[in-house]
Amino acid sequence: MSLRIIATGGTFDKHYDPLSGNLIFRESVLPEALDRARLTLPVSFESLLALDSLDMQDSHRQQIREACERSVEDRIVIVHGTDTMPETAQVLGQAALKKTIVLTGAMVPYQIARSDALFNLGFACAAANLAAVGVYVAMNGLLFSWDDVMKNRDVGVFQSLR
Amino acid sequence: MSLRIIATGGTFDKHYDPLSGNLIFRESVLPEALDRARLTLPVSFESLLALDSLDMQDSHRQQIREACERSVEDRIVIVHGTDTMPETAQVLGQAALKKTIVLTGAMVPYQIARSDALFNLGFACAAANLAAVGVYVAMNGLLFSWDDVMKNRDVGVFQSLR
Amino acid sequence: MSLRIIATGGTFDKHYDPLSGNLIFRESVLPEALDRARLTLPVSFESLLALDSLDMQDSHRQQIREACERSVEDRIVIVHGTDTMPETAQVLGQAALKKTIVLTGAMVPYQIARSDALFNLGFACAAANLAAVGVYVAMNGLLFSWDDVMKNRDVGVFQSLR
Amino acid sequence: MSLRIIATGGTFDKHYDPLSGNLIFRESVLPEALDRARLTLPVSFESLLALDSLDMQDSHRQQIREACERSVEDRIVIVHGTDTMPETAQVLGQAALKKTIVLTGAMVPYQIARSDALFNLGFACAAANLAAVGVYVAMNGLLFSWDDVMKNRDVGVFQSLR
Repeated sequence: MSLRIIATGGTFDKHYDPLSGNLIFRESVLPEALDRARLTLPVSFESLLALDSLDMQDSHRQQIREACERSVEDRIVIVHGTDTMPETAQVLGQAALKKTIVLTGAMVPYQIARSDALFNLGFACAAANLAAVGVYVAMNGLLFSWDDVMKNRDVGVFQSLR
Repeated sequence: MSLRIIATGGTFDKHYDPLSGNLIFRESVLPEALDRARLTLPVSFESLLALDSLDMQDSHRQQIREACERSVEDRIVIVHGTDTMPETAQVLGQAALKKTIVLTGAMVPYQIARSDALFNLGFACAAANLAAVGVYVAMNGLLFSWDDVMKNRDVGVFQSLR
Repeated sequence: MSLRIIATGGTFDKHYDPLSGNLIFRESVLPEALDRARLTLPVSFESLLALDSLDMQDSHRQQIREACERSVEDRIVIVHGTDTMPETAQVLGQAALKKTIVLTGAMVPYQIARSDALFNLGFACAAANLAAVGVYVAMNGLLFSWDDVMKNRDVGVFQSLR
Repeated sequence: MSLRIIATGGTFDKHYDPLSGNLIFRESVLPEALDRARLTLPVSFESLLALDSLDMQDSHRQQIREACERSVEDRIVIVHGTDTMPETAQVLGQAALKKTIVLTGAMVPYQIARSDALFNLGFACAAANLAAVGVYVAMNGLLFSWDDVMKNRDVGVFQSLR
């Protein structure tokens, strides 16, 4: 078994820029996060995009779909911004690839105190290893199917549509 | 779906004691770690033991088995020292409870820079949600069956017996 | 000897807000930071303002001056945003109080990885203990007089005017 | 003005070793800590020893004295274990070098949550910049003269002899 991890940006991967005082993208934190995890599971890491998910367009979602298609690994974790994670999940779900694809992200950047990023990454890696072929969103300790998930922005949690 | 998380001590939960300069047990870090994870998954936490796993005796393993038996949740994560995690897994595996039980821990304490603890906790929570009834060890991004796992102490990783 | 520490906001004290994705003010991190420092030096902490220093008006600077005047401690550290720290230092310097006042802050918030906040706080506390009556800015490991300091925003460091 | 920083080991600089479960010495954390501090103050760093201060012998203290003597910088910070910091301060104080020498350390390693290390380093750097020629111990937010300091091991704080 092996795993592909694809970075696309999002809160998970934001860095503080001391000059502007803003949170920006630089090189992904994922190689460091995966190193911490002390994996013996073979992982190939791909830095595909570095976008706030509110800035993600259809063309970006097609890039993500293509990255999943060409992945030689059948089990894929995508680190993604939370705001439009369900939209990207939908694009990937409708593509009906024969792979297990798990989208995750973070409500607090990896670099900031008390971040959920590393927990979510671990959760998503296990889900990608164990879940059946399909597309999922892993947040808040739950695994949602791509066609039954929304982000409740008022409280900052993911929930089922029903 | 809901989850029980049982603390038994181990490296995951060690604190630095400024007076002695040693790593010791105090109140568990798990409530803080679970709070970071921003779970909406219902979790009940039980602080059962606070032991270095090299100090764990048969009687302690029976206490852990009893805690799993009486758990009203069918899906259980046990945070445990790494050195004898396979031994405890064996006791629980042979007990053949009708539950999904995942043991995890850490090679570096939660409180220390670049710890694997939060990743492992996330991985174990997903595995406990998704795996079939049985007893497992979740370390290094892999999920091992209780009857096919050992810790290779020379390199500090878990591996299959075969 | 004793010390007063006055929080006024600034980068040092910014928190990440998971709902908006912005850096905002909540209760000050200074009590936690001072607790970490394991002080036996008597310290009284005052949470006066919680402002981005770009939002600081003359009236706020007068509030800070009044807080310094009424302080029973003769040695004062003010945690302040970096962008207008020299302006506030000037107001306090011209007030010519008979106290040792050291302004400091951070280029990276206390809560974010690799922050300079705790170093600067330690530096400022020592400077407040040791420097003569006067008003100073403590940043980048240097102590500047209030009438000879500017922030070079292009590179994000404080420097002498000469 | 410029500063020499000399690492000699101690709690400040201890790393967790995942294989043995012990706190050990590896390369010093000081270059990273100084990098965080965003210094423009010129600093030269010297990694002299890597010892628990309980293991420090007279010969090691003579090495430290010689390092201070040959330092081209007149202002020196020594990062040292806390247990025998006063003894080393005494050796340096009696050597009566014409330099400002400040010993500091940490009660909790730099790498462990809620460490005092970075605060103490900032405090010591300011003290080395500002104090008169002499030898000092900087801990707990206080600056002690070398001939008037002891560590109270029962409570883990430094105090005056009087």
